Amino acid sequence: MNLNKITKKGKALFLAYDQGLEHGPTDFNNRNVDPNYIIKIARVGKFTGIVFQKGISEKYNKEIKKSKIPLIIKLNGKTNLFKGEPISKQLCTVEEAVKLGAAAVGYTIYIGSNYEDEMLQEFENIQREAHRKNLPIIVWVYPRGKSVLGKSKKELMAYACRVGLEIGADIIKIQYNGNPKNLKWAVKSAGKTKVVIAGGIKKNEKELLKQVEEIINSGAIGLAIGRNVWQAEKPLEITKKIKKVIWG
Amino acid sequence: MNLNKITKKGKALFLAYDQGLEHGPTDFNNRNVDPNYIIKIARVGKFTGIVFQKGISEKYNKEIKKSKIPLIIKLNGKTNLFKGEPISKQLCTVEEAVKLGAAAVGYTIYIGSNYEDEMLQEFENIQREAHRKNLPIIVWVYPRGKSVLGKSKKELMAYACRVGLEIGADIIKIQYNGNPKNLKWAVKSAGKTKVVIAGGIKKNEKELLKQVEEIINSGAIGLAIGRNVWQAEKPLEITKKIKKVIWG
Amino acid sequence: MNLNKITKKGKALFLAYDQGLEHGPTDFNNRNVDPNYIIKIARVGKFTGIVFQKGISEKYNKEIKKSKIPLIIKLNGKTNLFKGEPISKQLCTVEEAVKLGAAAVGYTIYIGSNYEDEMLQEFENIQREAHRKNLPIIVWVYPRGKSVLGKSKKELMAYACRVGLEIGADIIKIQYNGNPKNLKWAVKSAGKTKVVIAGGIKKNEKELLKQVEEIINSGAIGLAIGRNVWQAEKPLEITKKIKKVIWG
Amino acid sequence: MNLNKITKKGKALFLAYDQGLEHGPTDFNNRNVDPNYIIKIARVGKFTGIVFQKGISEKYNKEIKKSKIPLIIKLNGKTNLFKGEPISKQLCTVEEAVKLGAAAVGYTIYIGSNYEDEMLQEFENIQREAHRKNLPIIVWVYPRGKSVLGKSKKELMAYACRVGLEIGADIIKIQYNGNPKNLKWAVKSAGKTKVVIAGGIKKNEKELLKQVEEIINSGAIGLAIGRNVWQAEKPLEITKKIKKVIWG
Amino acid sequence: MNLNKITKKGKALFLAYDQGLEHGPTDFNNRNVDPNYIIKIARVGKFTGIVFQKGISEKYNKEIKKSKIPLIIKLNGKTNLFKGEPISKQLCTVEEAVKLGAAAVGYTIYIGSNYEDEMLQEFENIQREAHRKNLPIIVWVYPRGKSVLGKSKKELMAYACRVGLEIGADIIKIQYNGNPKNLKWAVKSAGKTKVVIAGGIKKNEKELLKQVEEIINSGAIGLAIGRNVWQAEKPLEITKKIKKVIWG
Repeated sequence: MNLNKITKKGKALFLAYDQGLEHGPTDFNNRNVDPNYIIKIARVGKFTGIVFQKGISEKYNKEIKKSKIPLIIKLNGKTNLFKGEPISKQLCTVEEAVKLGAAAVGYTIYIGSNYEDEMLQEFENIQREAHRKNLPIIVWVYPRGKSVLGKSKKELMAYACRVGLEIGADIIKIQYNGNPKNLKWAVKSAGKTKVVIAGGIKKNEKELLKQVEEIINSGAIGLAIGRNVWQAEKPLEITKKIKKVIWG
Repeated sequence: MNLNKITKKGKALFLAYDQGLEHGPTDFNNRNVDPNYIIKIARVGKFTGIVFQKGISEKYNKEIKKSKIPLIIKLNGKTNLFKGEPISKQLCTVEEAVKLGAAAVGYTIYIGSNYEDEMLQEFENIQREAHRKNLPIIVWVYPRGKSVLGKSKKELMAYACRVGLEIGADIIKIQYNGNPKNLKWAVKSAGKTKVVIAGGIKKNEKELLKQVEEIINSGAIGLAIGRNVWQAEKPLEITKKIKKVIWG
Repeated sequence: MNLNKITKKGKALFLAYDQGLEHGPTDFNNRNVDPNYIIKIARVGKFTGIVFQKGISEKYNKEIKKSKIPLIIKLNGKTNLFKGEPISKQLCTVEEAVKLGAAAVGYTIYIGSNYEDEMLQEFENIQREAHRKNLPIIVWVYPRGKSVLGKSKKELMAYACRVGLEIGADIIKIQYNGNPKNLKWAVKSAGKTKVVIAGGIKKNEKELLKQVEEIINSGAIGLAIGRNVWQAEKPLEITKKIKKVIWG
Repeated sequence: MNLNKITKKGKALFLAYDQGLEHGPTDFNNRNVDPNYIIKIARVGKFTGIVFQKGISEKYNKEIKKSKIPLIIKLNGKTNLFKGEPISKQLCTVEEAVKLGAAAVGYTIYIGSNYEDEMLQEFENIQREAHRKNLPIIVWVYPRGKSVLGKSKKELMAYACRVGLEIGADIIKIQYNGNPKNLKWAVKSAGKTKVVIAGGIKKNEKELLKQVEEIINSGAIGLAIGRNVWQAEKPLEITKKIKKVIWG
Repeated sequence: MNLNKITKKGKALFLAYDQGLEHGPTDFNNRNVDPNYIIKIARVGKFTGIVFQKGISEKYNKEIKKSKIPLIIKLNGKTNLFKGEPISKQLCTVEEAVKLGAAAVGYTIYIGSNYEDEMLQEFENIQREAHRKNLPIIVWVYPRGKSVLGKSKKELMAYACRVGLEIGADIIKIQYNGNPKNLKWAVKSAGKTKVVIAGGIKKNEKELLKQVEEIINSGAIGLAIGRNVWQAEKPLEITKKIKKVIWG
C-alpha cells in the first residue's frame, strides 16, 4: 500500500482530533472546540494528515478540502461513558470516506476486551474494502478491559504492534510506554507495517520533544498528536519543534 | 443539509408527540390522547414540525398532510417498562418515512448505555440513508444507564451535543440542565450542528418562558416541546407566548 | 388497511388455536387436540377468522380452504418451557402466509421483556411487508418479564393498546383486566387501531357473556377466543350466544 | 410432503449415526468407528434411511450412493462438551444436502433451552427451503436446559410432538418415556405429522423388542435407531427382529 | 479433496507461524520475529506448507511466492489477552486467500467453549466456500473453556479428531497427549479425514523426534510445527532430522 499521500519522506505527523467523541468536550476550550481552529493548525503547520470522525468530515468538508491537508477518517468510535468492557463499532463506511475525500481511514481495536473478536472481524471487512479502494488503513491497537489489568506494558506494546501486522494494517498507532528499548522491539515486531505513536495527554515541551526523538530513533515513522498541539498556547511553535525532530 | 422545511428564519419549534410509546398513555387525558387534537394544535399554532412514530404517521396520514405541518418521524422507540440498560431500535425505515411524506427523521441514542454501540451504529446507517434521500436527521442524545449515574449534568449536556456533531446529525435534541452558561458551552460544542431543547415535564408558564428565552440566547435554534403545550389548558395561548420569545 | 375480510359489520370473532405451541397439549383433550375439530367449529360457527401457526396452516390447508374461514397465521411463537425473559421470534414469513391463503397475519410482542427491542424491530419488518402485500396485521401485546411485576394492570392494558397504535398495527389483541372503565380508556388510547380481547382461560358461561358485553360496549371490535369455545361441551351453543351479544 | 423415499408401507426404520459429533467416539469400538461398517449394516439390513452429518456424507458419498440407502443429513449439531444451555446451529445447507443426494434432512431443537428461539427460527428457514426443494424435514425435539428440570416426562413428550406439528415438520423424532398410553397421546398431539422414536442407549434385546411393539401400536411410524443396532454383536440379527415387529 | 499441493508422498510437514497473533511476540527473538526468516527456513527446509495470517500473507506476498512454499492461510485468530471463554472469528475470506495464492486454508474451533456453536457454523460456511474454490481446509480442533477442565485428554483428543470428520474438514490439526495408543484411536476416529499434530512448545530434540516417530506410526500424516523449528539454534538441522523420520 502506497503511503505517499499521508507521509513526507517516509515520515508522518498526524493531527488527531477524535477526542470530541472519545472523551467529550472536556478536553476543549473556547478556541479548540472549533474544528476550524484545528484545520487551521493542520494547514499552517503542514501536518501530513488530520484525523476526524465522519460528522466533522462532512460538516467542515469545504474547509478541509480548501486546507489541502490529507483527511484521515476514523471509522469507529464510542463515548467514554460506559464503564464495562470496551467496544467501538463502525460508524462510517469506506465508501462514505472516499466520497468525503479521505486519503486514509482509521479503526480502533481494544485487544483483550470481551469484544475483541467483534472489532477484529469488523476491522478485516474494512481493511479489505479500503484496499479495494486503494486507501491505506491505520489501526489504533489499545489493550483494554479487565483481562489486561496488571499485564506488562512492554509486552502489551509489542503485542499491539504485532497484531497490526498480522491483521493487515498499513500503519499501527500505539501508545508509548516511555522505554525506547521496548519501543524498538515493538516496532520490529510490526515487520513491514509502519508504526506511529499516540501523543496522549499534554506533557511539558521538553518531555514531549525527548519522546519524539526516541520515537523516531526507534524506527517508528512518526506521531498522531492532538492535545499536545491544540491545547498548547502556541500550537504552531510546538509543531515546528516536533517537525524539526522528525524531519531534521 | 438544508433545514428550511423544518425551520422558520433559522429557528425551530417542534411539537413532540412520541410519548405514547415512550411513557404510555399516562401522559394523556381524554383530549390529548387523540392524535387529531395534536395535529390541530400544530396546524393552528403553526409549529415548524410535528414529531410522530410511524404508526400515527400512517393511520393519521391524511390529517397530517392536510394540516401542512412538516412531519418528523421518530425512527426508533421503546416502552419505559424494561428496567435494565436502555436500548431503542429502529422501527421505521427512511424509505417508509419518505413515502409517508416526512420532512425529517429522528433517532434516539442513549449514550453511556451498555447498548450505546448498537444505537450509534444503527444511527449511522440511518444518517447515510437519510442524507442520500435529502432528509435532515435529528438525533435525541440522552445520557442513560448505570454508568452515567452521578456524573455532572453540565458535562453530560455538552458531551451529548458533541456526540451529535461527531456522528453527523443535522440537529441535536438534548435536555437542558437549567444553567444558561452551561448551555452556551454545549451549543458551542455542537459546532455547525444545530441544537434544540426538549421541553420535558410540565412546568408553570413563567418558568417555561424564562427557559425558552435562555435557550434562544444560548445559540440553540429552538425547542421540541410536547407536554408543556398539549397538557396545557389552552395550548394555543402558551404556544403564542413561546413563539413570541423565539421569533419576537 | 381494509379489515373487511376478517370482520363482519365492523365486528370480529376469531377462533384462536395457537395454544399447542404456546402451552403444549395440556389444554387439549381427545377431541380438540385435532385441528379438524377446530376447523369444523369455526366453519359451522361462522367465525370471522381462525388463528393457526404455520405448521397447521400447511398440513391442514385443504381443510382450511374448504371451510372458507379466513385464515390468520401467527408468525411467531415459543413454548412456555423456558423460564427467563420471554422472547418469541418469527417462524413464518409473510410470503409463506400469502401462499397459504392467509387473510391476515399476527405477531406477539412481550413489552417490558429484556427482548422487547428485538420483537418490536422484527414486528416492524413484518408490518411493512404485510402492508406491501395488502394483509392486515394483528399484534398481540402482552406486558411480561421481571420488569413489569407489580405494575398496575389498568395502566399496562392501556399501554399495550397505545403501543399497538404507535407501531402501526391494524388490530391489537390484549388481555382484559375485567374493569369496563379501564377498557374504554385503553380502547381510546389505541386511536384508529382496532382492539380485540383475548378470551383467556375457561370461565363459566355467565361470566364470559358478561365480559363479551363489556368488551363490545367499550369500543373494542370483538374477541379472539379459544379455550372458552373449543373446551366447551357444546362449542356451537356458546358461540351462538357470544355472537348474539356481538352482532345482536 | 411425500415420505415414500424414506418409508416402506408407511413405516420407517432409520439407522442413526450422528453420535460421533454429539457424544464423541466413546460410543464406538474398532468396528463401528468406521462409517463403512454402518453403511454396510444399513444396506444389508435394508433400513429405510441412514442419518449422517455433512462430513461423513461427503467423505463417504460414493459408498453411500452405492449402497442405495436413502441418505438423511442432520443439518445441525454440537459436541456434548459445553455444559451450559444447549444450542445446536446449522452446519450444512439444504442446497448442499441436495447435492450430496439426500432424500431428507434433519434438525434438532432443544425446547426449553435459553436458545430455543434461535433454533426454532433457524429450523423454519430450513423447513421452507427444504419444502421448496421437495425434501421432507425431520425434527428432533428434545426438551433440555435448566428450565425443564423436574417437569413431567409425559407432558414433555406430548409437548415435543405438538411443537413438531405446529412448526411444520414432516416427521418428529422424540425420546420415549416407556409408557405406551402416554406415547399414544403424544402421537395424537402430532396430528398429521408423523412420529419416530429415538432408540437411545443400548438395552437388552427383549426390552428393546417390547418397546418397538409399543411404538408401532401407538401410531408412531417407526424408529431412528443407532447404538442398539451398531453396538450389537450381530447387528443384522437384531435388525431382522425389529423389522419383523414393524412390518410383520 | 486432492491434498497433493500440500503433501509429499501423502505426508505433510507444515511450518506454523501464526503465534504472533495468538501469543504475541513473546515467542520471538530478533531473528524469528522477521517473517522473512521463517520463509527462508520453509524454502530451504522444503516444508510442504507454511502457515500465516492474512496480514503477513499480504505484506510478504512477493517473498512467499518467490519461495514457492505452498501458502496455508489461517482464516481466524485472536489474541491470548482475553481471559473468558475462547472465541476466534473469521479475519480473512476464502476469496482473499485465493487471491493471495493460498494452496489451503485453516480455521480454529475451540470445542467445549461457550462459543463453540458460532465457530462450528462459521467453519461450515468457510468449508463450503473453500471446496467450491477447490481449496483443502484444515481445522485446528482444540478443546477449551471452563466446561472441559478435568476431562480425559485421551477422550478429548479422539473427540477432536471425530469432530473434524463429522464437519467435513480435509485435515485435522490436534494436540498430542503423548500416548501412542490413544493417538492411534484418535486417528482411526477421524476416518477418511487426515490428521496432523501440532508441534507445541519447544522440547529437546530427542523427545521431539521420538514423538514424530509415534505420530507417523499412528497413521497421522505429519506435523504442523513452529516453535520447535524456528526457535531452534539450527532450524534446518532439526528440520532435516524430522523429515528423515517422516519420509525415511
